[in-house]
Amino acid sequence: MARRAVLFDLGGVLFGPGLQPFLGSCERDCALPRNFLWKVMSAGGSNSPYAKVMRGQITLSQLFSEMEEGCRQHATASGVTLPPTFSVAQAFEEMAAKGTVNAPLLQAAKVLRRNGFKTCVLTNNWVDDSAGRLFTATLMNLLHRHFDLVIESCRLGMQKPDPKIYTYALDALQAKPQEVILLDDIGENLKPAQEMGMATVLVRDTETVLKELEELSGIQLLTQQEPLPTACDPTNVTHGYVPIRHGVQLHFVEMGQGPVVCLCHGFPESWLSWRFQIPALVDAGFRVIALEMKGYGESTAPPDIKEYSQEQICKTPSPQGIPQTVLIGHDWGGALVWNMALFYPERVRAVASLNTPYRPADPSVDIVERMKSIPTFDYQFYFQEPGVAEAELEKDIGRTLKALIRSTRQEDRLPVTSEFHRVQERGGLLVGLPENPPASQILHGPELQYYIQRFQKSGFRYGPLNWYRNMRPNWHWALSAKDRKITMPALMVTAGKDKVLHPNMSKGMEEWVSQYSPSPAQPWLCS
Amino acid sequence: MARRAVLFDLGGVLFGPGLQPFLGSCERDCALPRNFLWKVMSAGGSNSPYAKVMRGQITLSQLFSEMEEGCRQHATASGVTLPPTFSVAQAFEEMAAKGTVNAPLLQAAKVLRRNGFKTCVLTNNWVDDSAGRLFTATLMNLLHRHFDLVIESCRLGMQKPDPKIYTYALDALQAKPQEVILLDDIGENLKPAQEMGMATVLVRDTETVLKELEELSGIQLLTQQEPLPTACDPTNVTHGYVPIRHGVQLHFVEMGQGPVVCLCHGFPESWLSWRFQIPALVDAGFRVIALEMKGYGESTAPPDIKEYSQEQICKTPSPQGIPQTVLIGHDWGGALVWNMALFYPERVRAVASLNTPYRPADPSVDIVERMKSIPTFDYQFYFQEPGVAEAELEKDIGRTLKALIRSTRQEDRLPVTSEFHRVQERGGLLVGLPENPPASQILHGPELQYYIQRFQKSGFRYGPLNWYRNMRPNWHWALSAKDRKITMPALMVTAGKDKVLHPNMSKGMEEWVSQYSPSPAQPWLCS
Repeated sequence: MARRAVLFDLGGVLFGPGLQPFLGSCERDCALPRNFLWKVMSAGGSNSPYAKVMRGQITLSQLFSEMEEGCRQHATASGVTLPPTFSVAQAFEEMAAKGTVNAPLLQAAKVLRRNGFKTCVLTNNWVDDSAGRLFTATLMNLLHRHFDLVIESCRLGMQKPDPKIYTYALDALQAKPQEVILLDDIGENLKPAQEMGMATVLVRDTETVLKELEELSGIQLLTQQEPLPTACDPTNVTHGYVPIRHGVQLHFVEMGQGPVVCLCHGFPESWLSWRFQIPALVDAGFRVIALEMKGYGESTAPPDIKEYSQEQICKTPSPQGIPQTVLIGHDWGGALVWNMALFYPERVRAVASLNTPYRPADPSVDIVERMKSIPTFDYQFYFQEPGVAEAELEKDIGRTLKALIRSTRQEDRLPVTSEFHRVQERGGLLVGLPENPPASQILHGPELQYYIQRFQKSGFRYGPLNWYRNMRPNWHWALSAKDRKITMPALMVTAGKDKVLHPNMSKGMEEWVSQYSPSPAQPWLCS
Repeated sequence: MARRAVLFDLGGVLFGPGLQPFLGSCERDCALPRNFLWKVMSAGGSNSPYAKVMRGQITLSQLFSEMEEGCRQHATASGVTLPPTFSVAQAFEEMAAKGTVNAPLLQAAKVLRRNGFKTCVLTNNWVDDSAGRLFTATLMNLLHRHFDLVIESCRLGMQKPDPKIYTYALDALQAKPQEVILLDDIGENLKPAQEMGMATVLVRDTETVLKELEELSGIQLLTQQEPLPTACDPTNVTHGYVPIRHGVQLHFVEMGQGPVVCLCHGFPESWLSWRFQIPALVDAGFRVIALEMKGYGESTAPPDIKEYSQEQICKTPSPQGIPQTVLIGHDWGGALVWNMALFYPERVRAVASLNTPYRPADPSVDIVERMKSIPTFDYQFYFQEPGVAEAELEKDIGRTLKALIRSTRQEDRLPVTSEFHRVQERGGLLVGLPENPPASQILHGPELQYYIQRFQKSGFRYGPLNWYRNMRPNWHWALSAKDRKITMPALMVTAGKDKVLHPNMSKGMEEWVSQYSPSPAQPWLCS
């Protein structure tokens, strides 16, 4: 029977080290005999403070009270003096401050989940009502986001190695023991699982665990190649709708708590383009708002071309009650975030652009003439005449997206490469490309279907293509800021294989960033 | 022609004091001659640094550079020594740190707006790209939320007293000059407005301004009675949808930036019950999430009664990526927040309940017997039998809501008072009440219609009434926490005229709050 679910212990496995070493250092700090604290905590067998807190009969702050009373009694009985600074809470606080998530093991859990395994945290854990409970909340929140299931003993009134909790986990996973792998750092907790027929891994060093887990699961976990990060699933995220004026709203996806990072996608894309970045930014402590840009998907698409000028889009009041955000944009979103940084700097905490460089508008050459002189911008002129490009791109939306959103890897190349120059001469952006290109490595399966649905709803005209149809208004507006500098922290990320927005376009750009300080590791991070 | 729009200046009017006194104290601190800074700032007439920054030709950080250069030149020319600590930015930073919003004037603007006036901020303002720009962002965000329109000179390239900016404002407000009142602290800025036919108020002391504004607008602004705070409008807020498991989502309204405050309404209500609290909490620096509780309105209403037990509702994972929130609940929402504080304390930063007290479950008396002994809980037994109360309450939803959601003021009383005891005996909650009661003072007009629409969608059964149908499961669950204390900051607010949850029910409750410290001003605020 194939393995299809993995149970991970928390303390000493996903998060380490566990409590024991911190009890030990507390004993040393307070000049208590070795194991003094553990003796008090486990005294009373199934009615010990430890057993009670793990079964949720008492909370963590009640454990502290019981322990302090128990320690006083045990100290008196064994002729030991408790120092005035003695505190049980301190051991727990140290664990929170010094412990860390086992990153390779968490990564392995993500890889297993992406490969169809059900992943579950099965932990003897306490109800944390202590002053340090934000640590617990943050850790559990991380686990809830990255595992299918989190089972805590304190919510159930039973704990490992009570066989009932393993049965509970099997029911919750709808799995047979033979389908399950259990990881724990306490041998005693593995025994009942083994007897039921689960495969078990006694956790010592991470590398050995990963090897055993790789063998048991058949999934490569020790690979040198960095796997894709966790992506978010459109059906399992918070969707928001912010009205920007009567009858016009923007759709967004929101996740996390902390300073706001606002993500602005490009053409022809979706908030889902940020699916790998959203959970990573949340893990890093940010509140992420991934916008669906004006005219795209579920955001309103007013018909007037002027609605999509940079000036109009930037003057949108900030989503209600959010004075300032970190702005990150790609492609058209990149142009937008530079304009926000120049025209509405008070609303920008920091700014980052992928691929799209900033360059001040040049009053000496008409923008249309300037753009015409750059062969790879030819497609933008093809996009100008309302009705033309939309007819081509809307004809077969699946084909359009498969043709335009591809990686540059060999296996992803189409028989005829899509070119962004000589588009007008060829009579269309997709002319010469296969009628039914294979799905690309970077957009396929349910994600591709999600993109297709969004463009079926919004089309390409109002919104997507109209962003291109404000060449002169955008230039005139930009001219009024041509002498300004970008004064907030700024990051420019270039992509060597971008055919249109080539890295050489960002050369000299640092001149326009007032806090520019080159560093070999992060050549473009100004803070 | 009746007045119907008011233009408010910002610096020295809505926010004070303006820049001038801070330039003065900077001059004193740096031992510069009086008016030294203003002379430099205004030198050059319409091409002065001041004029340029107000027209958006330069940004605030560019103003600092030009001013520092200008001050050096002027110092040399006039034989003055600039101290090494000299900084123009400092005057602006002081203004941000020491200035305050004119609260009575802002309040007057809100009252005017609620009475149908268009309100507009018309300010000579700069593009703030300085290190202190968060102050500007926060102030402008506040103004955007409380005024219909915000017009800044720096976005338009024109400034007061240029008549063009007044014409622009009239166009934006679609108003004639005779319909408009302008408030400014600079007489010169009033002149063109007067010439056009606007009524003008020269701002000196706030009381005089309010008197003049009251006379000109015909709206009472100097009343002793505190007016209602700003309410949010369902059509003009961000709506979010968070999936809590496959096929089940909660609807919420979200506003603001900062620590999360989550609002939980009661029976039979809506997130809109918090319409007055939401903007106030946002102004106080919080991110507010006002939930529509499970089974209500746009939140999913699964049919199973067990779905509405406190245990089931509390175990809902926190909205994605939000580890901990301040929880505030009313009525059933109050019961919920106490349970969250006891069972999931790590997810609760602080807790507050309106009307619903906490009292640990009593194992010695069956909950049903106990509830039967309290006459005002009779309605809860009427609610038990599926199909009965929903038939009565759904028959005429408008009547139900008008009858149940009323103030206790004399003018709001119905001919027969709704009673919560003897409901079973009378054969229904609404028996004896008028068929078409007048709308109440606390819920009428578009808000009442919004409530009606939500209950037309969700009905009363799955959701609203099912919350009552878990009496014994809720009791059994609560018993497991009967010895716990509420360890986080807690606030209990009682309502003297609540007929069911009377203040005397919260007597002795402080025993269950571990950080209780009575204070005469805030008898129940524990921090």
